[in-house]
Amino acid sequence: MTLAAISFVLLKTVVISVKKCKDFESSGQWYVTTENNGKQETTIFDAVMVCSGHHTDPYYPLESYPGIKQFKGKYFHSREYKNSDDYKGKRVVIVGMGNSAADIAVELSRTASQVFLSTRRGAWVISRVFDHGYPWDICFDTRFETFKRNSLLPMSIVSSLTEKKMNEWFCHANFGLQPVDRTQFKEPLLNDELPSRITCGFVLIKPPVSDFTETGVKFNDGSIEENIDVVIFATGYSFYFPFLDESVIKMEKNTVVLYKHIIPPTLEKPTLGIIGLIQPLGPIMPTSEMQARWLTRVFKGLCPFPPLTVVMDDIRKKHNSFTKRFGTTRENRLQVDFVEYVDELASDIGAKPNIFSMFLSDPLLAMALFFGPCTPTHFRLVGPGKWSPAREMILTTWDRIIKPTKTRVVNKGESTLSFVTKVLGALCVLAVIVAMFMYKY
Amino acid sequence: MTLAAISFVLLKTVVISVKKCKDFESSGQWYVTTENNGKQETTIFDAVMVCSGHHTDPYYPLESYPGIKQFKGKYFHSREYKNSDDYKGKRVVIVGMGNSAADIAVELSRTASQVFLSTRRGAWVISRVFDHGYPWDICFDTRFETFKRNSLLPMSIVSSLTEKKMNEWFCHANFGLQPVDRTQFKEPLLNDELPSRITCGFVLIKPPVSDFTETGVKFNDGSIEENIDVVIFATGYSFYFPFLDESVIKMEKNTVVLYKHIIPPTLEKPTLGIIGLIQPLGPIMPTSEMQARWLTRVFKGLCPFPPLTVVMDDIRKKHNSFTKRFGTTRENRLQVDFVEYVDELASDIGAKPNIFSMFLSDPLLAMALFFGPCTPTHFRLVGPGKWSPAREMILTTWDRIIKPTKTRVVNKGESTLSFVTKVLGALCVLAVIVAMFMYKY
Repeated sequence: MTLAAISFVLLKTVVISVKKCKDFESSGQWYVTTENNGKQETTIFDAVMVCSGHHTDPYYPLESYPGIKQFKGKYFHSREYKNSDDYKGKRVVIVGMGNSAADIAVELSRTASQVFLSTRRGAWVISRVFDHGYPWDICFDTRFETFKRNSLLPMSIVSSLTEKKMNEWFCHANFGLQPVDRTQFKEPLLNDELPSRITCGFVLIKPPVSDFTETGVKFNDGSIEENIDVVIFATGYSFYFPFLDESVIKMEKNTVVLYKHIIPPTLEKPTLGIIGLIQPLGPIMPTSEMQARWLTRVFKGLCPFPPLTVVMDDIRKKHNSFTKRFGTTRENRLQVDFVEYVDELASDIGAKPNIFSMFLSDPLLAMALFFGPCTPTHFRLVGPGKWSPAREMILTTWDRIIKPTKTRVVNKGESTLSFVTKVLGALCVLAVIVAMFMYKY
Repeated sequence: MTLAAISFVLLKTVVISVKKCKDFESSGQWYVTTENNGKQETTIFDAVMVCSGHHTDPYYPLESYPGIKQFKGKYFHSREYKNSDDYKGKRVVIVGMGNSAADIAVELSRTASQVFLSTRRGAWVISRVFDHGYPWDICFDTRFETFKRNSLLPMSIVSSLTEKKMNEWFCHANFGLQPVDRTQFKEPLLNDELPSRITCGFVLIKPPVSDFTETGVKFNDGSIEENIDVVIFATGYSFYFPFLDESVIKMEKNTVVLYKHIIPPTLEKPTLGIIGLIQPLGPIMPTSEMQARWLTRVFKGLCPFPPLTVVMDDIRKKHNSFTKRFGTTRENRLQVDFVEYVDELASDIGAKPNIFSMFLSDPLLAMALFFGPCTPTHFRLVGPGKWSPAREMILTTWDRIIKPTKTRVVNKGESTLSFVTKVLGALCVLAVIVAMFMYKY
């Protein structure tokens, strides 16, 4: 952040409430009450962006675990876990199977005498070192892959292919990790070390906890683990907006209804939006950046905000489609498809390049946009925020991806199979042309 | 080891020398001088098995590193490394790219401020969590895979396929790890975490060291790393037999000539053998077990020992074939192909099942022997040491492989692709029949 920008930021300041001004219907303005050093102050703002995220409050449903009150060991929510120093020789049960649960399990497995990881639903686990060593989202979040998944192939085939792909690294059934409902496409868990720690026996996967004794934990397959010292509930988070009135955002079962996952639909003026209350199947930073670009243009009136009936219709249609695709579990309620979502927002503000016509005018760039990783630079070729080095940056994306790890230069040479690869490459180009005719722009 | 066996073992006893008895040409006996508690004793033995391994003496070629004497930090051989506790905040250079180098690098990467891993030749790195989560040797060391590699396909295709396979997990060129000479098939380095630690920047791959300054290390690409606290030379080991006379085993350039990698060829009587002086492309334990089974039968005269001309001819032929396949580097001098080697020894002692005829008499077992992992149980079906549960054990090998990790039972279900898999399975069976006609028994 530059010094000029910092001068606009109030640090060490808590937002107490955000309320509509009396003339909100015409002005769209907000009273924002803040507290700094015990002193409250109310200021009028033209627009508000809420960026508090969805990991606000620990979700800690102790009442679902019979006997926890009589358990004499330590137990706490994963948010209180700091490091593995104090766990030498301890026997630890971790409840949950999100990223926190797995991260804590592999870290503790190096000091604790035994780690048990208890999961109700299981998870697809992938490595940060994905296909050929590239990051997962670089491979998964291309327009071609998105088109293949969401338009080209039937959902049952997509599910099967995904399952096959997920089991390439290790068979999730053999490692006790396979999701109970395999048809639901859930955000995968990212962990490089979990299968290795399971193989070595340091982490042991267990079914759900049924109840606690004074010193042990019973699981729903009838097994009991005695002499447990610590239980860590990695049961996730809830989000809430204590500074906002129910008339602005209404929470129901930890779910909110937002137009394009950003703006509460019933506001008379679209001058408040939530940024980052979303779980894209891909990176969150570029998603939030695009949300911010979209929202500021809505605030300024440069991106038209449709009438309520259109808004509600859009919300309903997307809700149905997402429920079908990602299911209705607590964890998946904020799930969206990364490319589809950022492309839609970019379209609204005129920042989405027309790849179809680009296949004629600049085929090299079109190939990179269609087959390459979908980076924020894709949305700097045209429209607001256009940036002249964007084309060059897109064409050299791969160089920058491998630069940090290629610290010893080797002669890559030609392999006997490279001819085959080239032939396959040529076939791919042919496939593009066919694909482009089918892709809906 | 049972109590009965322990009564034959002399503990805390050093072997000082092993010398031929005067009547060795007729008796084949040995004078073995041992030392226990300062007291030496010489006993006559009928036969001797040397099992001291090939990690006897650190290989520590300091003279090849100009300037190391003026370097003011700590430096030592990897054998002296014990744990990562003392390295908090330190900048460490590790020289070498064997299993020790990589193991120390990933362990130190959690405490040291930066680890540099310097390699001359690079290495193919594979994960212990190999294809679908199975151990590497379980997948690689089947008779079918061995047949494919060594008999069915030309060497150039095998090299290309191997390289392709090795780069599936991560592209070795992008991670700076690609071997300089990719045509040589070297024992891969096994490490689950190295690519992940490189991706995170904790381990940085460097080219070979050119020389040392007082506080820094220069590399042969011209780069310099300053403020280095510790240098660890993970330069491997040499083996030697100080208790044996040159007339028994002659070492040349850290290489010895042994019939079937076990018996010195020029002994008048084959009553001394070396066990475990070998690097199989697979597990060492079953290899050593088979060597021991073979050697004891040679000792007892139950496995015929051929005349010197045949022995020398065999040694020469194998040396030429191995040099072509595995190269001539210091690290590869003990390399053999696991299945080929144990099958040959088993054949000699009559413990190798005839898989070809078994395809008619017991096709299920024949399939398991040909396509399944080559476990020691394969050599308990016939011949000496025959064991009646062997058939059952071979057919249930996979169950025992997955048992330790499958601690949460899941409903595996049927996937849409399973039909395709079944069709492919049927094609495989057809392929067996063709393959069997070509396989040389």
